[in-house]
Amino acid sequence: MNFMTNKAGRRIPDRINGEPVVPYMGVDEYRPGGRRYGPPISSCADHPPGGDKRVGSLREALERCGLRDGMTLSTHHHFRNGDLLANQLFDIAHEMGVRGLRWFPSASFPCHGHLIPYLQDGTIERIEGSMNGPLGKFVSEGGMSGTGVLRSHGGRYQAVQDGEVRIDIAVIGAPAADPFGNANGLYGSSACGSLGFALADSRYAEKVIVVTDHPVDFPCVPWQIQGNDVDCVVEVDRLGDPAQIVSGTTRITRSPDRLLLAELTARFCDAAGIIRDGFSFQSGAGGTSLAVGEYFRKIMKDKGIRARFARGGSNKFLVSMLEEGLIDYLLDGQTFDLDGVRSMAENPNHIWTSPFTSYNYHGKGNFAGLVDVVVLGATEVDLEFNANVVTHSDGYLLHGIGGWQNCLYSKTVILPLPLFRDRIPVLRERVTTLCGPGELIDVIVTERGIAVNPLREDLIEATRNSSLPFKSLGELKQEADRICGIPAPPRLEEKVVAVVKWVDGTVLDAVHQVSLPPAGQES
Amino acid sequence: MNFMTNKAGRRIPDRINGEPVVPYMGVDEYRPGGRRYGPPISSCADHPPGGDKRVGSLREALERCGLRDGMTLSTHHHFRNGDLLANQLFDIAHEMGVRGLRWFPSASFPCHGHLIPYLQDGTIERIEGSMNGPLGKFVSEGGMSGTGVLRSHGGRYQAVQDGEVRIDIAVIGAPAADPFGNANGLYGSSACGSLGFALADSRYAEKVIVVTDHPVDFPCVPWQIQGNDVDCVVEVDRLGDPAQIVSGTTRITRSPDRLLLAELTARFCDAAGIIRDGFSFQSGAGGTSLAVGEYFRKIMKDKGIRARFARGGSNKFLVSMLEEGLIDYLLDGQTFDLDGVRSMAENPNHIWTSPFTSYNYHGKGNFAGLVDVVVLGATEVDLEFNANVVTHSDGYLLHGIGGWQNCLYSKTVILPLPLFRDRIPVLRERVTTLCGPGELIDVIVTERGIAVNPLREDLIEATRNSSLPFKSLGELKQEADRICGIPAPPRLEEKVVAVVKWVDGTVLDAVHQVSLPPAGQES
Repeated sequence: MNFMTNKAGRRIPDRINGEPVVPYMGVDEYRPGGRRYGPPISSCADHPPGGDKRVGSLREALERCGLRDGMTLSTHHHFRNGDLLANQLFDIAHEMGVRGLRWFPSASFPCHGHLIPYLQDGTIERIEGSMNGPLGKFVSEGGMSGTGVLRSHGGRYQAVQDGEVRIDIAVIGAPAADPFGNANGLYGSSACGSLGFALADSRYAEKVIVVTDHPVDFPCVPWQIQGNDVDCVVEVDRLGDPAQIVSGTTRITRSPDRLLLAELTARFCDAAGIIRDGFSFQSGAGGTSLAVGEYFRKIMKDKGIRARFARGGSNKFLVSMLEEGLIDYLLDGQTFDLDGVRSMAENPNHIWTSPFTSYNYHGKGNFAGLVDVVVLGATEVDLEFNANVVTHSDGYLLHGIGGWQNCLYSKTVILPLPLFRDRIPVLRERVTTLCGPGELIDVIVTERGIAVNPLREDLIEATRNSSLPFKSLGELKQEADRICGIPAPPRLEEKVVAVVKWVDGTVLDAVHQVSLPPAGQES
Repeated sequence: MNFMTNKAGRRIPDRINGEPVVPYMGVDEYRPGGRRYGPPISSCADHPPGGDKRVGSLREALERCGLRDGMTLSTHHHFRNGDLLANQLFDIAHEMGVRGLRWFPSASFPCHGHLIPYLQDGTIERIEGSMNGPLGKFVSEGGMSGTGVLRSHGGRYQAVQDGEVRIDIAVIGAPAADPFGNANGLYGSSACGSLGFALADSRYAEKVIVVTDHPVDFPCVPWQIQGNDVDCVVEVDRLGDPAQIVSGTTRITRSPDRLLLAELTARFCDAAGIIRDGFSFQSGAGGTSLAVGEYFRKIMKDKGIRARFARGGSNKFLVSMLEEGLIDYLLDGQTFDLDGVRSMAENPNHIWTSPFTSYNYHGKGNFAGLVDVVVLGATEVDLEFNANVVTHSDGYLLHGIGGWQNCLYSKTVILPLPLFRDRIPVLRERVTTLCGPGELIDVIVTERGIAVNPLREDLIEATRNSSLPFKSLGELKQEADRICGIPAPPRLEEKVVAVVKWVDGTVLDAVHQVSLPPAGQES
C-alpha cells in the first residue's frame, strides 16, 4: 500500500479496496466530473401486471434478485439497535454459501455484533458504513478482510447517486408496506418514523426488496419508499425489537458540568444574536444537546419568538416545542423516540426528510447550509478547530459519522465539549482521526471557557460585550493538560482498517489498526 | 424520408428529427437496454451557501442557465389554458435572438397559439408534446419545421428518465415556492394542485428554474418539487390566469344520449362484478365520464360499499365522494377545479401523484395496472378495438394523449362513445391514427349497444345473464354506417408532421399533413 498526503496534511493510502483514491482537496475545492449513476432501465413488462410483488420469504426474494458472491447489499439503520433484519439477511447469505459480500448499511449498531463470524468466515468481505461498539473493536483490531469506508449520511447518498457505490440488492425494512412496495416507517409494531436513509438505495440499487411486518392494502401512504422502485415484497413476523428501535434514552443530562456546557452554548447563541424570530437550529439527541434545546426553549419563550424550523433527529422535546408553537416546522431525518414517531404521523408540520434533501453535497445545495446554528459533539479537537468524531484517543473506531460532517455547513457550528473525559483531554495537539476541517467549526464551548474560531470575526464582534468566559483553544488546552497531563499518542499499526471520506467523496483521513499489547500484558 | 411498417401494421418513418426510430413491437414486447439518464453531478460548492437562489428576472435566470440555440426547454401544463409562463419564456428567447429551440411541454393549450409566430420565424424548431387547438391546426397544415413527437404522460416521464429527451432548461411555474426552490401547487393565486408533471423535468434537466408568484419562506411544504434539484428561483407578479387554471368546466353532461352511455357503462361494471367493496376506478373529467362517476356513487351507496381508491384528475365530484367516505384514497395527478385544489391541500387522503408513480412504463410497475376499471374517451375505434385519441377523422391533430395510453393497462378499460359525432361515425374500418392497441381495450359502450372485446371471455361470461344490450363492433358499425354513410378517408399528404409514441418509447404511428383544398374551395 502506497501513501500520499492530502490537503489536510493527513497520510492516506492511494488505493482502497483496489480502487484509486481521490484525496481531500480542501473545503469546497473538489469538483466532481461525470454524471449521476443511472440504474438499468426496467420495464413494467417484467413486473406483475396487477402490482402484487409479494414473494414467500426473504430467501426466495434474494434468490430472485440473483444474490451471488461479491455483491453489495444495503440496509438502513432506522431500527437502530433493535434491527433484526440485517442479521437475518446475512444468516441467509451464509446458508446459501454466498461469499465476499460488501455490507453497505446506513449505520450499524451493537446488535450487529452478530455479524462478526461472517466477517471471519468470508461471507462478508467488508463493511462500508459506521462501525460502532463490537464491530468497531473488531475492525480496529484488524479483523476485517477489506478496508472499511466511513461516510457521512450525505456522503452515503452522494456515493450512491454518483455511482461510487453500486448497490446490487437493497433490503429495506419497512414498518408498513403494501404489496406493490410502497412503504413508510410510521405505522405498525416496528414503527421508526422516517425511511429516508433507504431513499438512495431504493432509487439506485439494481434490485430492491421491501420487508415488512405490517402489510397494508395499496396504497400505503405516505410512500416514503416508492413501490415503483421495488422488485419484491416480503412479509415477515417481526422486523425489529420495538423497545430498541425507539430506545427511549433521550434524557436530558443531569450532570452539572454538562448542564453548564448547555447553558453556555445557549447564552452564546443569544449573545451572538442567533436566537431571533424565524431562526433555525439543529441539536442532537445526546444529553447535552437536549439540554441546549431546553435552554433555547426558555430563551424563545422569554423573548416571545418562534423558530421557523428545527432539524431533527426528533424527540419528545422537539415535538413539544412544535406542538407548543415555538417551532413552525420540524424537518426530520430520523425519530429517536415514540413521541417523534407519533408526531411525524400526526403533525402536518413534522416533515420527513432524507439525506438527499438535507445533506447531499452533490446536489444543487442542501438544507444543512440553511440552518442558523447546529450543536454537535466530538471526541477530539485540535488547536485549529479540526475535530474527530469516529475514533477515541486510543485509536479505536467506535462511532459513526452520521450527519456530523454535513452539519458543519450550517451557518454557525458549536461543539459543547467537556475539557476531558475519564482524565483524557479532548483538546489535542493532533486529532487521532480528522473528520471535520477546523475552518467549518466555529465555536468550542467547554466548562472552563468558550473559544471562537478566529475566522468568525463576526461572532467575536457580536459577543464582545457579553459576560461570557472567552478563552483561546491554546489556553483551554493548557488548563486541561495541567490537570490530566499530556497523554501518550495511541499505538497504531501501519495497516489501514478504514478511511474517512469527506462529504464530496474525497478521502480525508485513514484509520489505522490498533496495536495490541503483547499477550499477558494489559495496556 | 424512408418508411417502414411496424408490428401494428402502421407505416412510420425510419428517422424522426434526424434520429433513428425504434418501431412499435407489440404490447409488452420491447425491452429497453441501457441505463437511466444521469444528469451531470452538481456540487453545493456551485450554489449559494445560504440556499437563496433568487435571481432578478426570468431573463436573467435563462442567461445564467446558458440559454442558447438548439436547446430543449420544458414547461408543465398544470396551469392549463391559464398559463402565462410558456408564452413569456419564448417571448424572452425571441428577444434574446435564440433560435432552433425544442419546446417540450407536458401538454399545450389554446393559449399557446401565441407561439405560432415563433414556430414561423425559427425561434422554435419543434414541439414535442400535445398540440391542441390552434397549434394542432398549424402543425397539421405543415407549418412546423421539425416533426412533432406525441407522448403519453407516462411516455414523457419515460423519455426523460431514459435520456431519449435531454432537457437543457426546465422552467417550472410554481404557485408557491421558497428561495431554495422547494415548490408546490397548493397555495397562492395561481394554485393548481399538483406539480407532478414537472417532476421528471426537475430531476433530470441540466438546469431548473422555478418561477413563482407566491414566494414563501423556507421551507415550502410539501415540496412537490425539491429545491435540491433547482438552480434559480424567479419571483414574478403573475404566473397564470386563475379563472383559466381551474376552469370550472367540470359539468356533468345533460345530453340524454351521453347520460345513457354513462348509465350503461356503470351498469356494465356492476353486472361484471367490478363495483365491489375495496375496488378502484378512474374516470376522466369529461361530461360523460363525470356522469359515470355519479352512477358509481349511487351504486356504491345502494350496496353500502367503499372504493379503496379513485384516480384523479380530481374534481368536485371525486372530492365529495372522498369526503363522504365513499373513497378511502384519492390518488391524483392533476386537479381540474378549485374543490380539487382545496382538497389536495386539506385532505390527508387526497394524495398527489406523478407520472413516475402512476404511468411510467419503464419503472418496476406503475399504478395504472392496479386500477380495476378506467373509463376513457376516443375519437375513433376500429373493429379490432384499436383506438385513436389525437386526430379527428379529417386528419387534424387536435388532442393530446394525456394519460390515455397509460390507463390502457388498467384491469378493465371501457370507452363509452357515441356511435357518431356530427354525423361522423366513430367506428371506422381503420383509425386515422393508432394510439391504443385493441388488445388493451375491453369494452366499447355506445348508445345502441355494448361491445366486449372477445379476448375478455371473463367479462363476457360474467355479464352473460344481464339485461345489457350486447352487440358486436361489426353490428354497431353497420348501424352507424346505415345512418351516416361511410365517410371518405381524410385527404393527407405524404409528409409526416408528428409521430405517436407508445408507452415504451417505440413509434406506434405517424400523423400526416392534411391536404388543403385548392384556394377558393371549401372542403
